[in-house]
Amino acid sequence: MDERLKQQLEFVLEIDKEKNIFRQTHLSGQGRNENDAEHAWHMAIMAYLLREYSNEPVDIGRVMLMCLIHDIVEIDAGDTYAYDADGLKTQKAREDAAKERIFSLLPEDQKQELVRIFDEFEAFQTPEAKFARAMDNLQPLLLNDSNDGGDWKEHEVNAEKVYGRQRKTKRGSEKLFEVTDQILKENIAKGNLPE
Amino acid sequence: MDERLKQQLEFVLEIDKEKNIFRQTHLSGQGRNENDAEHAWHMAIMAYLLREYSNEPVDIGRVMLMCLIHDIVEIDAGDTYAYDADGLKTQKAREDAAKERIFSLLPEDQKQELVRIFDEFEAFQTPEAKFARAMDNLQPLLLNDSNDGGDWKEHEVNAEKVYGRQRKTKRGSEKLFEVTDQILKENIAKGNLPE
Repeated sequence: MDERLKQQLEFVLEIDKEKNIFRQTHLSGQGRNENDAEHAWHMAIMAYLLREYSNEPVDIGRVMLMCLIHDIVEIDAGDTYAYDADGLKTQKAREDAAKERIFSLLPEDQKQELVRIFDEFEAFQTPEAKFARAMDNLQPLLLNDSNDGGDWKEHEVNAEKVYGRQRKTKRGSEKLFEVTDQILKENIAKGNLPE
Repeated sequence: MDERLKQQLEFVLEIDKEKNIFRQTHLSGQGRNENDAEHAWHMAIMAYLLREYSNEPVDIGRVMLMCLIHDIVEIDAGDTYAYDADGLKTQKAREDAAKERIFSLLPEDQKQELVRIFDEFEAFQTPEAKFARAMDNLQPLLLNDSNDGGDWKEHEVNAEKVYGRQRKTKRGSEKLFEVTDQILKENIAKGNLPE
């Protein structure tokens, strides 16, 4: 097998480990914790189906790829819960080291390409990154809403904290932020999310 | 919320169930059974990274979408193991009913679009479908190879059966079939796969 293909297949096998990185979000139907690979799969399909709501035109293939790879670094760095203040302080350093190790398994050109897409998502500046980030917010929100806010209750987060994150959806999609706001208000009214 | 967006979000929540459909394949490192959503995520990234090996030029966004949605029908129809002769006889009828129910949750235009992509994958005629199918074969092969052929041993399948399926990879990628053939020969030599 030539060296290039060998490197590509090593990377493919390495990212299998993302299926073992579990998030704080639970599957619908009061299910088990969700893992990063499932979450990314769900986001990519959502991005495709909801692309008409992006504030700006997007290259949807690029958004989908961004969704698919945005959590690969968590194979080494672990999942950092969105409302874990201490974890968030060290998240960047942990994820930078992981990015270097994991993407370096690929041939150099593909390493550069995937790192660019990963960095674009993190920088949160392009229309594609803003829309992908909206999916990263909306996907767990829909699951958590379907489970009567169980994840918020477990972690005792309040509406202010959740809005602090979810408000950023507006930068990718005003329309999807309207829905987000509606879902959050319903959960506050039901007592699932303290004000 | 308007009706269109409501339908889209209902579909999004419905497909969450794909994460509970478990396959016969085990994760690398002698891990647990893999589910359909993880498998689809893995295939879509593989398709992107290995697209240079497609026999014919492909619209890679379409291939990725095909990979992502190709198993949604298994939410109702269940997973049919590739070497389960009885299951394979009823697979089409089960999957057709599932296709109608699940994609009908979407607005009509998106239902038609996703059904076309699903049918295209099943028909196995376009360059995109042939390459996506190669991913559907190669992905579990890589995992199973990393686990010393444990899935074949568990189901007592032989090389002839495995080649019967894996040979179709050639229609999407001659190059990736060469690798497949090499992996299978190594597993036969090691006694993981009886001739």
